[in-house]
Amino acid sequence: MTYELYYWPGIQGRGEFVRLALEEAGVPYVDVAKDKSGEEAASKMLLTFMSDPGLPHPPFAPPVLKAGGLLIAQTANILLYLGARHGLAPDDEAGRLWAHQLQLTITDWVVEVHDTHHPLGPTEYYVDQKPEARKRTQLFLQHRLPKYLSYFEKVLKRNPAASGFLVGAALTYADLSLFQMIAGLRYAFPRAMRKLESQFSAVLALHTRVSQQPRIAAYLASPRRIPFNEDGLFRHYPELDK
Amino acid sequence: MTYELYYWPGIQGRGEFVRLALEEAGVPYVDVAKDKSGEEAASKMLLTFMSDPGLPHPPFAPPVLKAGGLLIAQTANILLYLGARHGLAPDDEAGRLWAHQLQLTITDWVVEVHDTHHPLGPTEYYVDQKPEARKRTQLFLQHRLPKYLSYFEKVLKRNPAASGFLVGAALTYADLSLFQMIAGLRYAFPRAMRKLESQFSAVLALHTRVSQQPRIAAYLASPRRIPFNEDGLFRHYPELDK
Repeated sequence: MTYELYYWPGIQGRGEFVRLALEEAGVPYVDVAKDKSGEEAASKMLLTFMSDPGLPHPPFAPPVLKAGGLLIAQTANILLYLGARHGLAPDDEAGRLWAHQLQLTITDWVVEVHDTHHPLGPTEYYVDQKPEARKRTQLFLQHRLPKYLSYFEKVLKRNPAASGFLVGAALTYADLSLFQMIAGLRYAFPRAMRKLESQFSAVLALHTRVSQQPRIAAYLASPRRIPFNEDGLFRHYPELDK
Repeated sequence: MTYELYYWPGIQGRGEFVRLALEEAGVPYVDVAKDKSGEEAASKMLLTFMSDPGLPHPPFAPPVLKAGGLLIAQTANILLYLGARHGLAPDDEAGRLWAHQLQLTITDWVVEVHDTHHPLGPTEYYVDQKPEARKRTQLFLQHRLPKYLSYFEKVLKRNPAASGFLVGAALTYADLSLFQMIAGLRYAFPRAMRKLESQFSAVLALHTRVSQQPRIAAYLASPRRIPFNEDGLFRHYPELDK
């Protein structure tokens, strides 16, 4: 079976958490939006696909994974499914729930990162909410970012398996997602991250280790990895990174 | 086994989605914060519990469910666990993923409701972000609220089982959570909801039906149901509901 990933073209966004899992799993997949000619056509195709009145389980928003007859949306839900199938989550229930709990905490973190440039919500553009974005980002960098980093540092240090991974002895989709958070935060807030990073050595070591996994390293060096940009989740606006 | 729910005292908040599932399941549970004398002591106890350095799986935030030796956090993760155990989710994988997908969409909706009164994030009080809250709420009521309501209306109408529930033939935790969204939104935004509601008859019918489930009806009439208030997720600020 070849998976089909439906996501916006031209950005990493939430789809990237799914791409990293598919790449590390080493399974065949088609990134549907990328196989079309031009971003406009690809976006249109995505919207047509999602609004098909014949879908019994319509998604609210992408990413969506087509897995045979299944259509699965919500990033953490897709990872729950892929993790169980491709060795990217523990086999036991306690481990599976713990990995998913960490992923849902990353989901919350993702919303807070998104809201640094969209504090008034997704309806309006960044340029229409710049003063509010400045305020929200300041609070995020001062309070929330260190809180999330401290939390994942604690989880890594407390892991009874002392593996350097978040859950048990082996890499899970939660590690891939934490890697992506650090990569994205370094892109969006290089100044803030430089100041903070040294306090979170376990998180940084995990980021480095994930980037060196052979399949992930190959993916990151490939044209499949879309560069970060200011249409995505992690945006570098110098005026916000002070 | 008696479940233990750890959540902030004095508010429904995210804990309420868990309480509704425990009540409908008819299982014994202790709402730990409520069994203490006074909110201050209860909050302190909750923080002490969560920051115990002996916890191998520390939670980032409440609610937390203690289920025997398991400690589970993140609302949707707790519901995933309870749903599988107590007949509040389908038995088959496709149905379980679909229910969870809907729950995660409600999770996103919850964040957007929260951000109407906290557009600059959770660090500062509502009184310190009133102008921004007014802007965000206006966009929420105009664009996002109808979008979410339309989505769940569509899901209810498309359910191949035509049961009036969201997933398959029987009630799931996703139905309980959608009930809570409508109850909360009616409390927070009575004017806006009055204007919109009539367009979403399937959603309203579900709300009524859930409220009439015998165990839910008993719960709602009991002192265990904490009234909505302005410390929780759904807050009624008349200046926002215009």
